[in-house]
Amino acid sequence: MVVFIVKSNTAKTKFLLKDLPGSGKRIDILCRCVNSAFCLSHDIRKDVILYLCFAGKTIKFVGKELKHLTPDERGIAILIRKALEGNPTPGVYVSEKSFQDTLLESGKEIIYLDERGEDISHLKLKKDMCFVLGDHLGFDREDQKILEKIGKKISISPKILHADHCIIVVHNFLDRS
Amino acid sequence: MVVFIVKSNTAKTKFLLKDLPGSGKRIDILCRCVNSAFCLSHDIRKDVILYLCFAGKTIKFVGKELKHLTPDERGIAILIRKALEGNPTPGVYVSEKSFQDTLLESGKEIIYLDERGEDISHLKLKKDMCFVLGDHLGFDREDQKILEKIGKKISISPKILHADHCIIVVHNFLDRS
Repeated sequence: MVVFIVKSNTAKTKFLLKDLPGSGKRIDILCRCVNSAFCLSHDIRKDVILYLCFAGKTIKFVGKELKHLTPDERGIAILIRKALEGNPTPGVYVSEKSFQDTLLESGKEIIYLDERGEDISHLKLKKDMCFVLGDHLGFDREDQKILEKIGKKISISPKILHADHCIIVVHNFLDRS
Repeated sequence: MVVFIVKSNTAKTKFLLKDLPGSGKRIDILCRCVNSAFCLSHDIRKDVILYLCFAGKTIKFVGKELKHLTPDERGIAILIRKALEGNPTPGVYVSEKSFQDTLLESGKEIIYLDERGEDISHLKLKKDMCFVLGDHLGFDREDQKILEKIGKKISISPKILHADHCIIVVHNFLDRS
């Protein structure tokens, strides 16, 4: 089971479907992370768990239980909204767990993505890892401190990529390993 | 300059912003391909040209000229709609050129993605290649015939990925090469 944890410093729990980046303070990135984590052509990756941590909430998506997931941003934003309103669809769970508690609970080897890290090709990849990603602003100082203590810093590209693109690249390394 | 050509067999030129997958017959995939081709964190890939071929139209996006590109699907759908309505934003060009003419005009080495192709790691990558991708239905028989004649069939993953995810993986191979 591969786990992804995405932390957003800006995203909001209230947003307009017709303005996800503005009204949701870049919740569009988190929607695309759901797509990247689970969507295959005509299939869902069942061996993935994704946590989105933002605005004091953590939304957990469990691949093998997911239903009604469509790959489009608006469809995923509707799933997130339903979950936040207390009507989650199967496989989606909302809690008030902090990012740091989510990290500590994963019980897996923590790999956090940072362009200054060691290249992923040097990492002995296992399906049983937890990959941690920041948003367009990166990790804040407090999160960074914890990650430095418990995780390994890995780079996946010489370019700085969006979190949803990073998930695709990590999947490709895992799929090929 | 890396070129991507994406052919959709279903996407339509008229669509509702609040229902891109349904009303646009999977134009959401094409919107995400624009994001994948160009969007870096806080930057645009200027050395990329993307062609979207669908419904008898070809929309060309030129990285170094692009303005007003946002990474969200809805924002990109608005750019596509403006271009189709004759009010393109900078770097976006609409023509009635066919998919096959677009292929032949690229003048570059043609690589088409197919899960039965040779693995991309065996390919000598150059920045000056043209990568061709199908939609969720793959290439139709006629397109397939031409691609077999003029292109090289390459696989990028043991899984079958969406076109927008394929673009991310190809970029990662190029960025690392």
